[in-house]
Amino acid sequence: MINFDEAVIRENYQFIYAQRDRIEAIADQICADEFDLLFFTSSGGSMAMMQPFQHYINHYSPIPTDAMLSADLVLTGCNRITSHSIAFLTSKSGDTPDTLKAAQYLKERGVRLVSVIGIPDSPLEAISDYSFIYKDGRPQELVFYLLIGKILEIKGYFPDYKSFADELGSLGSALAQVRIQADEACISYAKKYCREPYNIWIGSGDLWPTAYSYSMCVLEESQWIRTKSVSSPEFFHGTLELLEDDVCVTLLLTEGVTRPLDEKVKAFAQKHTNKLTCFDCRDYALPGISDRYRPLLSPMIMAAVLQRISKNIEVITDHSLDIRRYYRKGEYS
Amino acid sequence: MINFDEAVIRENYQFIYAQRDRIEAIADQICADEFDLLFFTSSGGSMAMMQPFQHYINHYSPIPTDAMLSADLVLTGCNRITSHSIAFLTSKSGDTPDTLKAAQYLKERGVRLVSVIGIPDSPLEAISDYSFIYKDGRPQELVFYLLIGKILEIKGYFPDYKSFADELGSLGSALAQVRIQADEACISYAKKYCREPYNIWIGSGDLWPTAYSYSMCVLEESQWIRTKSVSSPEFFHGTLELLEDDVCVTLLLTEGVTRPLDEKVKAFAQKHTNKLTCFDCRDYALPGISDRYRPLLSPMIMAAVLQRISKNIEVITDHSLDIRRYYRKGEYS
Repeated sequence: MINFDEAVIRENYQFIYAQRDRIEAIADQICADEFDLLFFTSSGGSMAMMQPFQHYINHYSPIPTDAMLSADLVLTGCNRITSHSIAFLTSKSGDTPDTLKAAQYLKERGVRLVSVIGIPDSPLEAISDYSFIYKDGRPQELVFYLLIGKILEIKGYFPDYKSFADELGSLGSALAQVRIQADEACISYAKKYCREPYNIWIGSGDLWPTAYSYSMCVLEESQWIRTKSVSSPEFFHGTLELLEDDVCVTLLLTEGVTRPLDEKVKAFAQKHTNKLTCFDCRDYALPGISDRYRPLLSPMIMAAVLQRISKNIEVITDHSLDIRRYYRKGEYS
Repeated sequence: MINFDEAVIRENYQFIYAQRDRIEAIADQICADEFDLLFFTSSGGSMAMMQPFQHYINHYSPIPTDAMLSADLVLTGCNRITSHSIAFLTSKSGDTPDTLKAAQYLKERGVRLVSVIGIPDSPLEAISDYSFIYKDGRPQELVFYLLIGKILEIKGYFPDYKSFADELGSLGSALAQVRIQADEACISYAKKYCREPYNIWIGSGDLWPTAYSYSMCVLEESQWIRTKSVSSPEFFHGTLELLEDDVCVTLLLTEGVTRPLDEKVKAFAQKHTNKLTCFDCRDYALPGISDRYRPLLSPMIMAAVLQRISKNIEVITDHSLDIRRYYRKGEYS
C-alpha cells in the first residue's frame, strides 16, 4: 500500500485519544454553567467536519443547536445567540479570516468559544475560552466525539458514553484496518474515474458533509476534478435527470438514521448508470467496536476509506494533493 | 420576446397580490397565540423558495427559526419543535411524499401547519391548519413576503411593512419590465453556454437558494445540463481551484446584506475565467419600488431574470422544459 504507515495512523489517533481527560474536562467546564445553545461555525471543510455533531445532538437530545458558515454569520447575524451560548469553531491554521471574524462577532456577544485548531499560538486560540490543538492528531472528528459525547452524557442523553469512549480506544487500529480493506477498491476507483469530466457525489445525514467536503475540498481543490455534490433526498429533485449510462456517480452510505435515503438513491442509480460506485460504511469491520455504536461512526469510517482514494489518486494522476493554483496565494481573501 | 405575455405576468402577480388581506389574516391568526419557532420544511425547489425568508427573519428579528429538508426531518428529528411551533410547507402538487410525511410528523407534535400549494384539494391542504392555493399566481414568493412581512410587523420588527406591502402593488409590472430588460443578455447567455460541459453557479444569502435551485431544478432537471452550485463564501474553500479560462461561471449578485461575498467572487473570477457571467439585481430598474426595500427583493428580481434564460434556452436547445427522463415516472418515490 502506498503512502500508508499503520504505526503513524495509530500514533496520530492516539495523540488525540490520550488527551481524553483534557477534552472531557472542557465538557465539564462547558456544562458547569447553564447554556442555551450549542452553535457551530467555521468555513469550508472545517465546517463540514463539525456538522455531523449537530446532526447527532438533534437526533439524540433536545439540546438547542444551530450552525452557520462564518462568512454568513458575520453579515446576516444569528438571532438565537446570547451570552449563554457556546460556540464551536475549527480551523487547521487558526487564522482563517472568516472564522476569525466570526469568533470576534461571537466574543462581542459574550459567547464562550471552544476552538479545535491544528497548530498552537494562532489568533483563533488567543480569542477562545477553551482550545484543543491537534497538531498531527487525526482524525480531528475524534475531538468532537469525546467533547460532544461527554456533554450529552452530562446532560443525560448518552448514558453509555463511558463505554462508547472506552471502545473508541480501539478505533485507531480499526481505522488502519479499514484503510487496508478499502485500498484495492479505492485504487480501482481512482484509476477508473480520475479523468471523468463530471462526478456526482451523494450522501445523507451525518455523511452529507463528507460528500460535500470530500468532493469540494479534495477532488476540486487538490485534484482539479469537476464535481457536483447533492444530498440523497435532494438528488430526487433535479440531479436524477442527469443520469445516463456513462455518468459517474459516487454514493456514500451511512450506517446512521438516514440510511434509507441512501438506499433509495442506490436502487435508482444502479438502474440508470453503469458508473455507480457505492462506498458503504457497513462493509468495513471495526474490531473492538460494538454494533450498537457503529451508527455513530460513519464520518470517521468514511474518512478512512476516502483517504485511500486521495493517497492513490495523486500517484495515478501524478498531481500532488499539495498543488494549488490560487488558494491562499492571491489577494482575494 | 418569445414566450412572454406581459398581461399574463401582471395577472398572475395580481392573483396573489389581490389576496393580500387573506394572507395577512393568516399572519394575524398565527400571531393570535404565542409561538416559539417559525420552522420551514419542504423538498427541492419548494424548500429553496422558502429559505430566503428564514434568512430575512434572522437578520431583522430575534424570532427563532429553523429549517430542515422534509426527508431529513422525518428520520433525524428536530429537537426544537414543540406544540407551540409554526411550520411553513410548500408543494406545487400538494402531494410530494417527503413533504407530506413531514407534515404528518409535525401534526403529531401539535405544530400548526401553514401550507402554500399550487392546486386545491390536495393531501397537504387537508392536513394543514392554514393553506394558500396559488394556482396560476406567480411568483409564489410573494405569498411569503406578505405572510412573513406581516408577522414581522405584528411582532414589532418591520414597522414599515404597510408601506412595503403597498409598494409591492407595483412589483408585478416592474417584474415584467425586468424580464424585458434582461431578455437580450439571457438570449446571449443561453446561446453561448447551453452546450457547456460544466457550469458553476454561485450566490449568497437570500440568493444562495436561487443559485442552488435554478441550477438543479431547471438546468439539471429540465435541460439535462451539468452544474455545480456553491455559495459565494464556500467557493473559496475548494471550487476556486477549478477556474481556468474556459470554465463557465455564473454569479448571482444579491442586493441583500451578503453582497460583499458576491463581489469578492466577482473580483476573483473575472481574473481567472473568460466565461464569467454576472446577473446583478442592482442592474434592473423597479419602477414604484423605493430603494430602501430593494435589498429585500433579490429573489423575485432574480427569478424574473432567470426565467428569461429558461424561456429562451428551451427554444435554443430544442428541448422543452417539460421533458423528464425519470422524475415522477418510476417507482423510486
